[in-house]
Amino acid sequence: MKLGVCYYPEHWPKSRWVEDAQHMQRIGIEYVRIGEFSWSTIEPEPNELHWQWLDESLDIFHAHGLKVILGTPTATPPKWLVDRHPSMLAKDEQGRVRGFGSRRHYTFASLEYREACRRIVTLMAERYGQHPAVASWQTDNEYGCHNTILSYAETDLVAFRIWLAEKYGTIAALNKAWGNVFWSMDYRSFDEIELPNLTVTEANPSHRLDFQRCCSDQVVAFNKLQVAILREHSAGRDLVHNYMGFFTAFDHHKVGQDLDVASWDTYPLGFLDQESIYTEEEKHAYLRVGHPDFGAFHHDLYRGCGKGRLWIMEQQPGPVNWAPHNPTPANGAVRLWTWEAFSHGAELVSYFRWRQAPFGQEQMHAGLLRPDAQEAEAAQEAALVVAEVKVLGESLGLDADELMSLPSAGKVALMFDYDACWSLDIQPQSRAYRYLFWCYRLYEALRELGLSVDIIPSDASLDTYELLVLPAQAHISPALQVRLNAFKGVLLAGPRTGSKTDTYQIPNNLAPGPLASLLPLTVERVDALPNHTQPAVSGRWGSGSLLHWHEQIKTALPCLLKDDGGNPVLMGEGRNFYLGSCIDNGLLKASLAKLAEAAGLSSVYLPKGVRVRERGKVIFVFNYASHEVFFEPEGAELVIGYRHLAAAGVSIWKKR
Amino acid sequence: MKLGVCYYPEHWPKSRWVEDAQHMQRIGIEYVRIGEFSWSTIEPEPNELHWQWLDESLDIFHAHGLKVILGTPTATPPKWLVDRHPSMLAKDEQGRVRGFGSRRHYTFASLEYREACRRIVTLMAERYGQHPAVASWQTDNEYGCHNTILSYAETDLVAFRIWLAEKYGTIAALNKAWGNVFWSMDYRSFDEIELPNLTVTEANPSHRLDFQRCCSDQVVAFNKLQVAILREHSAGRDLVHNYMGFFTAFDHHKVGQDLDVASWDTYPLGFLDQESIYTEEEKHAYLRVGHPDFGAFHHDLYRGCGKGRLWIMEQQPGPVNWAPHNPTPANGAVRLWTWEAFSHGAELVSYFRWRQAPFGQEQMHAGLLRPDAQEAEAAQEAALVVAEVKVLGESLGLDADELMSLPSAGKVALMFDYDACWSLDIQPQSRAYRYLFWCYRLYEALRELGLSVDIIPSDASLDTYELLVLPAQAHISPALQVRLNAFKGVLLAGPRTGSKTDTYQIPNNLAPGPLASLLPLTVERVDALPNHTQPAVSGRWGSGSLLHWHEQIKTALPCLLKDDGGNPVLMGEGRNFYLGSCIDNGLLKASLAKLAEAAGLSSVYLPKGVRVRERGKVIFVFNYASHEVFFEPEGAELVIGYRHLAAAGVSIWKKR
Amino acid sequence: MKLGVCYYPEHWPKSRWVEDAQHMQRIGIEYVRIGEFSWSTIEPEPNELHWQWLDESLDIFHAHGLKVILGTPTATPPKWLVDRHPSMLAKDEQGRVRGFGSRRHYTFASLEYREACRRIVTLMAERYGQHPAVASWQTDNEYGCHNTILSYAETDLVAFRIWLAEKYGTIAALNKAWGNVFWSMDYRSFDEIELPNLTVTEANPSHRLDFQRCCSDQVVAFNKLQVAILREHSAGRDLVHNYMGFFTAFDHHKVGQDLDVASWDTYPLGFLDQESIYTEEEKHAYLRVGHPDFGAFHHDLYRGCGKGRLWIMEQQPGPVNWAPHNPTPANGAVRLWTWEAFSHGAELVSYFRWRQAPFGQEQMHAGLLRPDAQEAEAAQEAALVVAEVKVLGESLGLDADELMSLPSAGKVALMFDYDACWSLDIQPQSRAYRYLFWCYRLYEALRELGLSVDIIPSDASLDTYELLVLPAQAHISPALQVRLNAFKGVLLAGPRTGSKTDTYQIPNNLAPGPLASLLPLTVERVDALPNHTQPAVSGRWGSGSLLHWHEQIKTALPCLLKDDGGNPVLMGEGRNFYLGSCIDNGLLKASLAKLAEAAGLSSVYLPKGVRVRERGKVIFVFNYASHEVFFEPEGAELVIGYRHLAAAGVSIWKKR
Ligand SMILES: [Zn+2]
Ligand SMILES: [Zn+2]
Ligand SMILES: [Zn+2]
Repeated sequence: MKLGVCYYPEHWPKSRWVEDAQHMQRIGIEYVRIGEFSWSTIEPEPNELHWQWLDESLDIFHAHGLKVILGTPTATPPKWLVDRHPSMLAKDEQGRVRGFGSRRHYTFASLEYREACRRIVTLMAERYGQHPAVASWQTDNEYGCHNTILSYAETDLVAFRIWLAEKYGTIAALNKAWGNVFWSMDYRSFDEIELPNLTVTEANPSHRLDFQRCCSDQVVAFNKLQVAILREHSAGRDLVHNYMGFFTAFDHHKVGQDLDVASWDTYPLGFLDQESIYTEEEKHAYLRVGHPDFGAFHHDLYRGCGKGRLWIMEQQPGPVNWAPHNPTPANGAVRLWTWEAFSHGAELVSYFRWRQAPFGQEQMHAGLLRPDAQEAEAAQEAALVVAEVKVLGESLGLDADELMSLPSAGKVALMFDYDACWSLDIQPQSRAYRYLFWCYRLYEALRELGLSVDIIPSDASLDTYELLVLPAQAHISPALQVRLNAFKGVLLAGPRTGSKTDTYQIPNNLAPGPLASLLPLTVERVDALPNHTQPAVSGRWGSGSLLHWHEQIKTALPCLLKDDGGNPVLMGEGRNFYLGSCIDNGLLKASLAKLAEAAGLSSVYLPKGVRVRERGKVIFVFNYASHEVFFEPEGAELVIGYRHLAAAGVSIWKKR
Repeated sequence: MKLGVCYYPEHWPKSRWVEDAQHMQRIGIEYVRIGEFSWSTIEPEPNELHWQWLDESLDIFHAHGLKVILGTPTATPPKWLVDRHPSMLAKDEQGRVRGFGSRRHYTFASLEYREACRRIVTLMAERYGQHPAVASWQTDNEYGCHNTILSYAETDLVAFRIWLAEKYGTIAALNKAWGNVFWSMDYRSFDEIELPNLTVTEANPSHRLDFQRCCSDQVVAFNKLQVAILREHSAGRDLVHNYMGFFTAFDHHKVGQDLDVASWDTYPLGFLDQESIYTEEEKHAYLRVGHPDFGAFHHDLYRGCGKGRLWIMEQQPGPVNWAPHNPTPANGAVRLWTWEAFSHGAELVSYFRWRQAPFGQEQMHAGLLRPDAQEAEAAQEAALVVAEVKVLGESLGLDADELMSLPSAGKVALMFDYDACWSLDIQPQSRAYRYLFWCYRLYEALRELGLSVDIIPSDASLDTYELLVLPAQAHISPALQVRLNAFKGVLLAGPRTGSKTDTYQIPNNLAPGPLASLLPLTVERVDALPNHTQPAVSGRWGSGSLLHWHEQIKTALPCLLKDDGGNPVLMGEGRNFYLGSCIDNGLLKASLAKLAEAAGLSSVYLPKGVRVRERGKVIFVFNYASHEVFFEPEGAELVIGYRHLAAAGVSIWKKR
Repeated sequence: MKLGVCYYPEHWPKSRWVEDAQHMQRIGIEYVRIGEFSWSTIEPEPNELHWQWLDESLDIFHAHGLKVILGTPTATPPKWLVDRHPSMLAKDEQGRVRGFGSRRHYTFASLEYREACRRIVTLMAERYGQHPAVASWQTDNEYGCHNTILSYAETDLVAFRIWLAEKYGTIAALNKAWGNVFWSMDYRSFDEIELPNLTVTEANPSHRLDFQRCCSDQVVAFNKLQVAILREHSAGRDLVHNYMGFFTAFDHHKVGQDLDVASWDTYPLGFLDQESIYTEEEKHAYLRVGHPDFGAFHHDLYRGCGKGRLWIMEQQPGPVNWAPHNPTPANGAVRLWTWEAFSHGAELVSYFRWRQAPFGQEQMHAGLLRPDAQEAEAAQEAALVVAEVKVLGESLGLDADELMSLPSAGKVALMFDYDACWSLDIQPQSRAYRYLFWCYRLYEALRELGLSVDIIPSDASLDTYELLVLPAQAHISPALQVRLNAFKGVLLAGPRTGSKTDTYQIPNNLAPGPLASLLPLTVERVDALPNHTQPAVSGRWGSGSLLHWHEQIKTALPCLLKDDGGNPVLMGEGRNFYLGSCIDNGLLKASLAKLAEAAGLSSVYLPKGVRVRERGKVIFVFNYASHEVFFEPEGAELVIGYRHLAAAGVSIWKKR
């Protein structure tokens, strides 16, 4: 368990660099991420390469025992490059060029820009691939930030036509797969196909889904190009990219396949304020710590994208600048977030940024240091974590590396699938339904029961799990079907599971499609509801309300919950269960508790705001409430903290 | 009273066609609408015409005694046609081309596209004009759907300049009519005139109104072109177009003049959810049946556009896919809607669609059959209606054709005028005011009083009416003035009546302009209010609140209602009355009841959610409430249903 | 104290002109503004100049003793001019050309359009500069109306590059000032710089701020060009421009430097309805009189832009047409507004417009006359004011000119700075914070304490003030710092004061930057809050809530208010105080009352809706409440009105 920080030597006079490195050391920071926005400093004029500043900073870090995560600077191509290759710019859905003047001004599909990236990454990798300070490389920065996955420029159209031709072979196959006969949308050749924007009404959902897939694949290819260069010149270093919160526009599992570690950038307060997933009540209650499951959900999600390895590349250290409102974190929140990350398997937590910049777009974004180089609150909390990690290691008899490799996998898995996300959000039927939010609410309920959850891709092995939740696995591939049939634990499939074919059609046997053998039922009709109507539901497992999505199902399976018309809502027997509707949090928890019991797992209703996570023999307890809460896990002894947890408090326990 | 269905042979394997026709027959369906989106199947390549599939399906329908309504396929031109004539595409108000990829990708003003339509419609009419299965033709599909009446492309500009030159003759006449001196907006020639979009602030309202009229006239011309061809090649068949709900962007009366029947597409749940006319309370109360006056209002409106003949071309049979939320209808709702349509004079109710398509944009739109070809709920309700029609006919001693020709006109008329709608909505003064909504609320109040209402155009004969309501007849033409002067019944003119000249100016004598002789009063000033301020109103006829629009009037007429400053709100004597403000539903009902009484009509305050409609000697009673209601009309005996109507219940009575 | 009116001879037949002039005279009107939209009447064809109508109208006004304010017609260039110079058109932020068809269709930066303006203004000035009726010239009309300050056309880009080159000299200086290193945004030459629109995410705030400044400077230059011509040909006449309410997009102080008088266009009801600054409760309470501080705030603001001289060029006389809802004013409101203006130093109140036009965009905008030439309510109220002015003059023993020159400056100053406004709104941190609104709420609180306030520019002399409020003076220039150090009165600096350098960077010593010597404190961190969280604040001076913006401050100064964590909120001693947060109205009033006391000023908590203003020895009392209120100022005797003020009532007192 290590700490890191994001740093920009190019923003500060050289005279500060040594001082900063010493200060990082004092706090206990071991990793520094640099370089990812520095292209114009490296190459201020075409082919005029300024390496000296970077040489010197790397040497300083090395001299102070700091390991460097070096970023490729491709998220911020300089103006001269853009002027030479104007076709590298993206276009938004309205057809407007997205110009220079901020960052991420390129489309992934641009071959001209890929060539420019190949060149600069090669130059960097050749120069620093074997530098002793360089422990890792970050490719680009936050793929897709500012809504940059879908682009509607000419270059994207070319790429899309090629992608479709490769996928379908013949235009007849595409017409059939998309059902283009529907509104005389048939094409005679791939060259007739347009991008699915600026149509009179919505484009064919199959068309939209394939365009999303194509754009996602452009990201994969763009990343692969950099990975290949870095592997060649800097073998043995961890390759990583920094993902974002609540962001699903490309397939992170696919990108993750080519990297060594998954990392993400966690801003609990900004996302609480910004995201429509949260209620006004939640936004108020968790204003200064973030929602209790925000960090956890993404830690578990991205650990699943990183083949089990997780870093936090950017951890919010204070108020940020980009949310609609930017409050200060509670005292202790930075420490809480850091421990939460460790408890989910993070090897490294790196704060963004070292020092608040007094200029540019993010001048109101806090750092560990203030703009005047004094320590901000978060610096002290980071130092406290360093001390506590030592205490924990001593208590467990483990050194730092052993701590880092404590197992983090659980017995409960929730399947998260980017393709399912795109499919279902293209036609949500009720504006109140979104795939991501439903996954999140399922995860929240599991976690409120004290369960440690893995979030897994649809091609993951299921062998180690006792309970598996498929929130809404739109398309069930043959391979997944095989693994589900072989699964020995308890399975819960949620609404919309198996409701689409691979090319966005309704299966011949209706939903749940290929799962009907495992779950003998038919979804006959869907009742997609506005918030103002929440019908009652009740049965052997509890009572509550239906929300947003409610399937009318025909089945002979035993029903654990029914709606007020007597229709099945939650049904199943033995080890396979199906939930046909979104249901309220209370009933969801009650149902999941029953399923956990069936799976031989013990669960507990945690106090509001409290969360628990196990990692190896360590139990972490977190209090996200804004008042003191008492909690002690069973069969464990206290190592750090108190049974009475203060607001934003953490306690750490060792299993007996 | 017949049932029909919309069907797409091109979506299904040939092997299904006979089976489907037999199934339709079994249910009792007599009409099938086909063809309207099939251009790319008919003509997959330019000039390569595939008629065989259509030949065969027509023969199958004919063999099974099904009558066909054949749609011209001009709402979905194929990609190759668009690529040949890119200027046929519309531009939206922001100047963006509205491209291929869904439907309705053309502008009505395009002469190139009209020529393409002339060709394909001629080919179809020549081939099928005399086919024994073809009973009727539908031109295109849902003119204006997806906001396609106003288009801002170059071809529209050309058409507009020609239209203006024809209307005004000289540019001086136009400048004067528009008042262009106002902001130095004078033009020197028709070629200087631009479309009224992308101006710095709002364009001249006279300019906007004429553009709306021109665009509406383009629809009329576009439809006329198809009508002429069909009349030539398929004489004797009913020509029809399918209009939409709450849609006013072209003059349906003008289009209707060229057709034999008016039809419309009724989706009570989608419109309830989508339209801002309804309150949150209404959206909740009527979630599963739609608002009690939604269907009725449009039935009466479109019967008035169809010279007394009305069809329902598309009747919602289950959840749809396009509203923000798409709930399932109540049990019985499809039957309720079908009978409501018959009670307003519909000869035919055709369900959209026969079978839910598993692909394309509308794959979540229910049909009578599910995607797996099993019957959905609505199929049973349709079959029930067929049986009930038989019972009703027997009870009345009428055969099917006699039932269809039962008289449907009433004694109360509400005047609906598209030109008035455009005029008043261009400058509503209060965002809370809209012409259509005010008409709807007047209609609702009349209907809550048990009255059967005709909705008539401004050039209709008034001879048969006892009570005439002019909701807000902005411009009073000389011809209308003559008919109003001659009218023998009771007249109520609402706020904004007579407030504009033909070219969008204030009349010299102020509102009500030419009506001042009939209604001696002057509208001195207008108080246009937000929702939060609803001043009190009271007088001899009741008390309540003013809403949104409140005129300050000088008159010597007796006042039945006054505002709290003593200003006249409802005034008149003898047979002519003027209402200067929008008023709340309770007071509106009380006032209309008084007027009905003055007109010698008896009215009754119906229970909440209950509606009644008379057609000939039959009285229909509908319960839109979600609970049981007791109601029996006076002087009638029960033929079908119960005095205690269940939720979504219908009872049918015969006058003694 | 004079009355005027806006008139459009070109809208009416010549036969009306004499009649209108006589009617104005009868009411007591002395000034007439004309001409500002008449270009197409003056010059219907290029170089074909029609002066006769204007010659004749000027002669008629002169013959009737009416003084003319002659408008240059540059806000409405005719179509032929636009067609000749299409590059004169602005582009909006989305890159769309803002075309002909309404008004203000030009960008200030267009040299072609400036040349056209130079020509037409010269022609007018040559012809009428010495006409005896012409007392004043108005340049153009409402600079910036309809969001026309920022334009993104090619001509604007050219102007911006020149402006930047002049400001920074070298591109290196610009890169440093903007902090372009931040995201590789460095430029190699001024020709690489683009406009800050259509970037992928927000552009550099320094970039945005400079663009705003550049656009503001274009307005200054545009106005200067006309001023120079008018000074040359019409020396001795007052030059004036008419500003707008709640409009800050250009620096009115800079434009005002070149003119003789500041005027503005006041529409109290339209702005109440339209502006998000007001709560729903305020919108309801003040529906028919406007918010009590709307007029006052702008009168004081613009008097400060006019070197102490203020006119009202357009005063709302009845319902307008452009707000979301357009109610009628209360009886007496027009009189109230007129007296409020006089009480703040207005020399002239001119009503917009003389007669309601029956055509064009504003046909629903009331005038003193109705479209049928009858007097509307406001005409009587204007006549009443004329009579009351006479009474007041007699009571004070002053003639009309002496009344006009009564002193209007106060002892309390609030500093309003356009550059600060732009700076802080570019990055508000909390969407609930806006510079203008915070200034307004401070002004409101001062005025609710009965204080008469001057609103001054940042370069104003401070010598005459006892209390000075800096709401949020983002950048403290060296010159201002000198004056603040020398200031002898009580100073209150609000949150964000001194928080930015001149080029939008954080000062090295953090906020309050250069003011730290006067106010020894450091703003360590900012808590930017949503509306739902309003932490408690309390201390020696009262208790209440924090809103939107809350600074965490380190200081040794005594604290008058602290937050619930004990952090300083309001601090200071002697004569210098700092408020680090926005606070609620009650606590703001309590705090300002303490500061007024410290400054030796007496204040009083006025009844809700009541406002008081002193001018010389006259005290004006206004009742904006919708019910009767009792109020008498101390030590004064009643001249006009009553101690019990009716709704919208005014009383006028003479100090003893
Ligand atoms: Zn980001
Ligand atoms: Zn439609
Ligand atoms: Zn304006």
